[in-house]
Amino acid sequence: MKIILDAMGGDNAPDANIKGAVNAINKIKAELILIGKEEIIRAKIKEFYNKELEDISDRLKIRNSTEIIEMEDQPTVAIKHKKDSSMVVGFNMLKQDEGDVFISAGNSGALLAGATLIIGRIKGIDRPALAGILPAYKSQLLLMDCGSNTNCKPINLLQFAQMSTIYLKNTFGIEKPAIGLLNIGTEETKGNELVKESYQLLKEKSEELGINFVGNTEGRDAFSGKIDAIVTDGFTGNVFLKTTEGLGKLVKRSLKESMMKNIISKIASIPALPAINRFAKTMDYKAYGGALFLGVKKPVVKAHGSSDETLFEYTIIQAEKFVENKAVDKMIEAFNK
Amino acid sequence: MKIILDAMGGDNAPDANIKGAVNAINKIKAELILIGKEEIIRAKIKEFYNKELEDISDRLKIRNSTEIIEMEDQPTVAIKHKKDSSMVVGFNMLKQDEGDVFISAGNSGALLAGATLIIGRIKGIDRPALAGILPAYKSQLLLMDCGSNTNCKPINLLQFAQMSTIYLKNTFGIEKPAIGLLNIGTEETKGNELVKESYQLLKEKSEELGINFVGNTEGRDAFSGKIDAIVTDGFTGNVFLKTTEGLGKLVKRSLKESMMKNIISKIASIPALPAINRFAKTMDYKAYGGALFLGVKKPVVKAHGSSDETLFEYTIIQAEKFVENKAVDKMIEAFNK
Repeated sequence: MKIILDAMGGDNAPDANIKGAVNAINKIKAELILIGKEEIIRAKIKEFYNKELEDISDRLKIRNSTEIIEMEDQPTVAIKHKKDSSMVVGFNMLKQDEGDVFISAGNSGALLAGATLIIGRIKGIDRPALAGILPAYKSQLLLMDCGSNTNCKPINLLQFAQMSTIYLKNTFGIEKPAIGLLNIGTEETKGNELVKESYQLLKEKSEELGINFVGNTEGRDAFSGKIDAIVTDGFTGNVFLKTTEGLGKLVKRSLKESMMKNIISKIASIPALPAINRFAKTMDYKAYGGALFLGVKKPVVKAHGSSDETLFEYTIIQAEKFVENKAVDKMIEAFNK
Repeated sequence: MKIILDAMGGDNAPDANIKGAVNAINKIKAELILIGKEEIIRAKIKEFYNKELEDISDRLKIRNSTEIIEMEDQPTVAIKHKKDSSMVVGFNMLKQDEGDVFISAGNSGALLAGATLIIGRIKGIDRPALAGILPAYKSQLLLMDCGSNTNCKPINLLQFAQMSTIYLKNTFGIEKPAIGLLNIGTEETKGNELVKESYQLLKEKSEELGINFVGNTEGRDAFSGKIDAIVTDGFTGNVFLKTTEGLGKLVKRSLKESMMKNIISKIASIPALPAINRFAKTMDYKAYGGALFLGVKKPVVKAHGSSDETLFEYTIIQAEKFVENKAVDKMIEAFNK
């Protein structure tokens, strides 16, 4: 297996990307190909590890590319014109089977445009979408769409439910994943027009499509561990995702400051640290890696824009599992029927 | 001052309502009037405290009402037909100046219908809306609309921004409250149609209306303490609110279980408990009381449906402050201009 990593994309590129790759290489079996300015990547590795790339692992490689798609670039324009950018080179390698999965933390719009334009949609799927994994009680919660389609139709949400089901079955081994529709109440009549119509469509089609649709789900129940995935439009999904992120930050900051308030609380907190760290680990959505762009013909992973080296490491490890589980092949198969 | 409390509304009524009222009575200066079946309320007080109502406080009163609006009742139908329900009696007392604020944890739809039909909108406000207070870093975050208007227009969001400004100025003493528009990115071009149009309207009108509009705000930055209020439609706002609630539950449960995992972690956690409790307190949105229904002519407070006695206590205390600050009068004044 070959994992392709955009070394130049993300807020902390290329340092975090390179360090994450080096951290990950001994935890994966796959070959890992860094795409970016070779000279810079080699110099950074020398600087960080005082070693040559080849001395770190014979599974760590570079593919040179001279351009970078910046955060300010117009997505489709950038994909069409920056032919030698790390992102476009990565997508082309994936398309030509020179790699099995492409990971990038770069310009989200460009990543989605590239995945659709270069890799292409799976037949039968109208709108590919981002599926993110969040922590839930003793389990995890799949959220789809995390933000790629601001305006959705009921058919899109139905397909998100199908894709979530196939993905969770194959990657997490959940036989009948419970799929909820994100809403502001559990009754059928609740919500805006999109949600009401989507509810009816899901109710009607779920059995035929093998979806275990459990009805409307409110955010207050989403993390209970009883729901495996929630489907929603990209606007609401992105609000949901970023709200959990914002509140997560507040939790971390408040907990730390409560512990560090004064010398007494500092000392008193020491014996509790293993428990607190265990707690922090459960809550860390980062451990679940990046979001998957489901609905395109090959595995594409969107790493968090602000990924640090640890997050890149996790994302690479998760990407390997994603390929191993052949979720994309199974999705193509299911939608061919 | 007189506070009117619906003793029969909410998941834990009337027990939690009565206990919350008794807990609150010595922390407030106002008279507190419980509305509901007098016989039942008296019997409960006897049962819980082994005292007569009159022996608890001479500021604690009862107004008898024989009906109850149930959670399943059709809001407007219930308001029109259940004339002797605790909710309708409460609204009528508020209207006739027999009380200064009405609190209920009952059927949300009926509460909103009653507030609009019996109390009436403030002239100049198209859609009254629920304003909730959430915890934020070393401060609080006002969220409006929390869920009363599923479908909104840009003019509604502009008015939410105005109401938030007036409320925060008068109740929290924030001179120029920073108002953000909830969105999925900070750029002007981000979001769905409603958000894009609302952005333009807010940009255009803010100076004239005295709103300190700080632009688009993402959920990840909402709790940083730099934003005083976020405005959004009731669907997105309700998703936001319930997501924080759901994640809050997960945090509480995970932290507790991490501490209680085994006897060693239990003992080790004891010295850290003051710090952990301090943390839990910062995170507890309940301490901020219920949501305010802003835009109607009198103070109406929507207590959380699942309020327990502590939450009722807090909500009553907050309601007293709400009246003291005359935020509603100031809102009427501002919109009269």
